[in-house]
Amino acid sequence: MENILYGIQPVLEVLKAKRPALKRIFIFEGHQNPALRHLQELAEERGVPVQVQSKDRLTRMVKGEHHQGVVGVLADSLYASWEDLLKAIPFKGKWGRVLILDGIEDPQNFGSLIRTAGACGVAGIIIPKDRAVGLTPAAIKASAGAIAHIPVVRVTNLANSLEGLKKEGFWIVGADARGERNLYDMRFDINVGVVIGSEGKGIRPLIRSKCDFTVSIPMEGKVSSLNAAIAGAIILFEIFRQHLAPRNP
Amino acid sequence: MENILYGIQPVLEVLKAKRPALKRIFIFEGHQNPALRHLQELAEERGVPVQVQSKDRLTRMVKGEHHQGVVGVLADSLYASWEDLLKAIPFKGKWGRVLILDGIEDPQNFGSLIRTAGACGVAGIIIPKDRAVGLTPAAIKASAGAIAHIPVVRVTNLANSLEGLKKEGFWIVGADARGERNLYDMRFDINVGVVIGSEGKGIRPLIRSKCDFTVSIPMEGKVSSLNAAIAGAIILFEIFRQHLAPRNP
Repeated sequence: MENILYGIQPVLEVLKAKRPALKRIFIFEGHQNPALRHLQELAEERGVPVQVQSKDRLTRMVKGEHHQGVVGVLADSLYASWEDLLKAIPFKGKWGRVLILDGIEDPQNFGSLIRTAGACGVAGIIIPKDRAVGLTPAAIKASAGAIAHIPVVRVTNLANSLEGLKKEGFWIVGADARGERNLYDMRFDINVGVVIGSEGKGIRPLIRSKCDFTVSIPMEGKVSSLNAAIAGAIILFEIFRQHLAPRNP
Repeated sequence: MENILYGIQPVLEVLKAKRPALKRIFIFEGHQNPALRHLQELAEERGVPVQVQSKDRLTRMVKGEHHQGVVGVLADSLYASWEDLLKAIPFKGKWGRVLILDGIEDPQNFGSLIRTAGACGVAGIIIPKDRAVGLTPAAIKASAGAIAHIPVVRVTNLANSLEGLKKEGFWIVGADARGERNLYDMRFDINVGVVIGSEGKGIRPLIRSKCDFTVSIPMEGKVSSLNAAIAGAIILFEIFRQHLAPRNP
């Protein structure tokens, strides 16, 4: 089966995406649900074909998950291009934020980071092709539709992408529990590319060597590590907080 | 089956807890794993009985989940008392932080919030008995052992607990997407009880009426909501950041 997506809210959010992300939608035959009707109308407006299906057929498609009467078939490529990312970076009068994920493996964490990035004006997300989770149905579901609003670029050479960001005037900041600087001592009056490493191993040495500096999140108490999606959220929102202050370029 | 916990790291973390949290441990018969041996020694030190079991039996106990050769039986009450919470509040020379969860239903979110709270020096967590997830095995696992280090108090009347916190010199701050104040405009030179509402419905009206004020997290872009565990982390760490600054009482 091709990559699918299900549930009213996730399908609705992806339908609203700027980039065409759905090839086709299957809807429960004979439904009376106004939310499904609204979704069907929107699909027609956006030129996405809608087919009716029996409830059993939908349930088989999603392998027994709770589909709420709708299954979407995702476009062959949900990924954005490097050019899409550059277009999304705000160069006039505002500092930019880009998120780089170096090997996130858990689709929940990936989806959560997409949602968080989408909520604090991150221009785009860069992930590597290898040894990392991609835009799977579980990740898209966890993103709560945010995938519709933020470009995710998948690259073969993450180190090259960091060099590319530097050429665009970005500083690369790696998140590391043993980072050389305290997050809260930093002044982020810069364009920032934030690198979050994998859940188990953190940032790979080659990628770390491309970071302009590494930061750690101060902690207090006996718990000495944070989940990757939580650490990413705390760092992104701290940079966002500083970028909101009225001293932009 | 009683409440159980499994996996080397979760069992190890709970073994290290100050409060006795394990009644008994089952270990895979004839294992050669040094991590399991270490765990066994620690259990004996802490006076927790250890029994060997066949691999099949362990697998049945955890209903097919990945147990890594160890299953722990949780104590009848993992919850702390109100007095435990008061003892954990730092009254001398430091502002205190307490987390109140008004109806979190997802065990992943609950566990994640326990872990995050444990990493930023939150004195304790208060949850209601009804309409909220408790310390289930899934929540404990998601807390990555943090449950061992932070008191979780379960109460029948959350509104009363907020009044109790106020008597201890706390201000009650509710997290609300339509909150009256911007999180980043706040000066948290106070003891703070942060209230996070349920995933779907937010804070209940009665609990909201007990809040001294409500705050919203500023956002930018087309994604207009955050997951409850992420929102909680951003607010707790912003208060923590301010409490770290050298203007404590």
